[in-house]
Amino acid sequence: MSKPLISRLSSDDVDFKSDLEALLAFESALDSGVQKAVSEIIADVRVRGDAAVLELTRRFDGARADSMAALEIPQADLQAALEGLASEQRAALEMACKRVRDYHERQIQPDWEMQEANGTRLGQRVTPLDRVGIYVPGGKASYPSSVLMNAMPAKVAGVQEIIMVTPTPEGERNPLVLAAAALAGVDRVFTIGGAQAVAALAYGTESIPAVDKIVGPGNAYVAEAKRRVFGRVGIDMVAGPSEVLVISDGSGDPDWVAMDLFAQAEHDEKAQSILLCPDAAYLARVEESITRLLATMPRADIIRTSLADRGALIHVRDMDEACEIANYIAAEHLELSVEDPEALLPKIRHAGAIFVGHWSVEALGDYCAGPNHVLPTGRSARFSSPLGVYDFQKRTSVIRISRQGAAELAPVAATLAYGEGLQAHARSAEYRK
Amino acid sequence: MSKPLISRLSSDDVDFKSDLEALLAFESALDSGVQKAVSEIIADVRVRGDAAVLELTRRFDGARADSMAALEIPQADLQAALEGLASEQRAALEMACKRVRDYHERQIQPDWEMQEANGTRLGQRVTPLDRVGIYVPGGKASYPSSVLMNAMPAKVAGVQEIIMVTPTPEGERNPLVLAAAALAGVDRVFTIGGAQAVAALAYGTESIPAVDKIVGPGNAYVAEAKRRVFGRVGIDMVAGPSEVLVISDGSGDPDWVAMDLFAQAEHDEKAQSILLCPDAAYLARVEESITRLLATMPRADIIRTSLADRGALIHVRDMDEACEIANYIAAEHLELSVEDPEALLPKIRHAGAIFVGHWSVEALGDYCAGPNHVLPTGRSARFSSPLGVYDFQKRTSVIRISRQGAAELAPVAATLAYGEGLQAHARSAEYRK
Repeated sequence: MSKPLISRLSSDDVDFKSDLEALLAFESALDSGVQKAVSEIIADVRVRGDAAVLELTRRFDGARADSMAALEIPQADLQAALEGLASEQRAALEMACKRVRDYHERQIQPDWEMQEANGTRLGQRVTPLDRVGIYVPGGKASYPSSVLMNAMPAKVAGVQEIIMVTPTPEGERNPLVLAAAALAGVDRVFTIGGAQAVAALAYGTESIPAVDKIVGPGNAYVAEAKRRVFGRVGIDMVAGPSEVLVISDGSGDPDWVAMDLFAQAEHDEKAQSILLCPDAAYLARVEESITRLLATMPRADIIRTSLADRGALIHVRDMDEACEIANYIAAEHLELSVEDPEALLPKIRHAGAIFVGHWSVEALGDYCAGPNHVLPTGRSARFSSPLGVYDFQKRTSVIRISRQGAAELAPVAATLAYGEGLQAHARSAEYRK
Repeated sequence: MSKPLISRLSSDDVDFKSDLEALLAFESALDSGVQKAVSEIIADVRVRGDAAVLELTRRFDGARADSMAALEIPQADLQAALEGLASEQRAALEMACKRVRDYHERQIQPDWEMQEANGTRLGQRVTPLDRVGIYVPGGKASYPSSVLMNAMPAKVAGVQEIIMVTPTPEGERNPLVLAAAALAGVDRVFTIGGAQAVAALAYGTESIPAVDKIVGPGNAYVAEAKRRVFGRVGIDMVAGPSEVLVISDGSGDPDWVAMDLFAQAEHDEKAQSILLCPDAAYLARVEESITRLLATMPRADIIRTSLADRGALIHVRDMDEACEIANYIAAEHLELSVEDPEALLPKIRHAGAIFVGHWSVEALGDYCAGPNHVLPTGRSARFSSPLGVYDFQKRTSVIRISRQGAAELAPVAATLAYGEGLQAHARSAEYRK
């Protein structure tokens, strides 16, 4: 018997818990070769700057540039790419950009302050980062939508300068990516990539200004480089494969569910598509849809491997159990493909994004609904959030203690400081009594 | 001539920029021995669970426990520690706890939603993490105030379970730390530490529940272990040495400034205390205060080393230049020790916490003003924030697209998806037209 198109599991199976864990398990092995290479590249870029970046870009990307200036794409080229788009594409990109901006403007956080009777004022100020770097992969994972999703929150946050890096192996540029950069208001674009691009952004070179934070997905070298420069600059999460979890109550067209699973699976072989449903007959219908529709998909090979290796149709006892399992999985994308999604919503504690009801499909969220498509993967929605304006701002505590307030607080601080054996702290407080 | 008590710099010096960089430079060397040891400890705890934790705790901390149960401190012991405090200490701890709670309650973020004319609703939900781990160092850096500052934001965020770990070398417990844990509502306390404690919290063992995020400072092994489990769980920043930057206009008592510099320096030899002032005569008076007061400090040796190795009195041209330099340094603690601090405040873009005016001294903020004392170090205030309620919550995008909304968005999504070569995305969207 050949391997099934997609695994079938049931929460009744005696080994269900360990089967589920095995299904979800994905830990990118720490490759010591990658670690060593990245460490050397970072050291080289720190010491030799532009010369190192140029040499590594020639070696890894086949660039023919003889100066860093040749590796920068001028604003005029970005604008030309935008103007060269087919009108339908341009209109779609502009609508996506506007909707993403509108949604993210709601994430701007205000300063606040609380005042005490004695005049003391305590508060928090929210300010943008000065300059950020956005990594945009080259080749097949080079997505204009990701340029918007990474750059717009920074723009809305008030970041003054956005530097984009994107490798162009053999000099091949993606006009949609450049057009998206123009629309999003990216300030400078360099055609560099890999660990050398991350190092250049973190430490700066003669030509590339040092940034305060680096966001965006990349291969194993990029991910390792981000880990290594963390602390020197901020980074976003190190992204794992993309995932969708669909909860179905057996309502709705099984073809829709099958295509939603495909949409996740077509990203790459390691992407994960899981369906939870208490209705065994419906699961069989979805499987039938998968079988029938798969042949029609241009990326059928990728989808087939992804579904076979990492996909699953899971029969659950009831909708409560589906929610419990969903909370354990804490999926990047969760679709509530049910008649009464509002009844389930309060039971979901962990997910990157929740798509509520049959019309709310992930593909709309990926491109143009407005919310960010950069979401926590690999169960990290338990503790982290979609990329947002808050990732490009930071808070500062603002502490204004009045003379009277200091007199009241100083003895308290001194007592605690003496208890910790920190006498200078105590005396510094006591001076203000 | 002996080494001066503290360096004197001037922004007029020809090498000022590089001198300042050298002063701030602090990169904890990546010790390959530490990396290897931590990697082995994590692997061991993952495989052997409790047995590994117990064995490592016996080896490194001299514990005589023969079971994990013996390494847990029961709630009754925490309560007993609280009840055993001197009444002045208890009152101080309670006041600090209340003020920290009040301040952090202001950080709770509301859910929000925006609605469109076609019935589409887009929003964001904010929910607490389920369970978090707090690392509290043992020995001389075991601070009850840090227990409050780490646990209270989690409590205010609504985290259901807080697990504290703290090593007790040779079994020695710090009653103030246990009392603070009782006050803050910590749920369970284990007397374990080092990389083994971090591994146990990240992966769980038979006795120690796996958490979703680990916060709190620690030594090089703890820091490396946190880096390694990042992704599996959330972590807070890897903290560097503590720093204060004082901006003075020459007003105020130089003894106060000297003592504020001492309060930072007494933490440890690597702590950093810097003063910026345009008034050379005032700098000389502060230096005189340092010389006179140093002899009176119980921790004079630590202060002397810290000031000599990492401290500086810097003469600046004017207050504008002081603000520019402060933005470059992006200090953990910034004191505006000036007559008119409100005039400077708008010019400060980067700092963990700003202490405004002569009465607002860091020592009050460290213990009881209310804002968190866990702040970004090592210039990371450029891109990160004080520890807060937001570190113990995460956001979920909630996407409710109406039938009409789907009809409008589907063609846009499909156009962009075809442009990216993702046909299943396009068809998944088109089904909803």
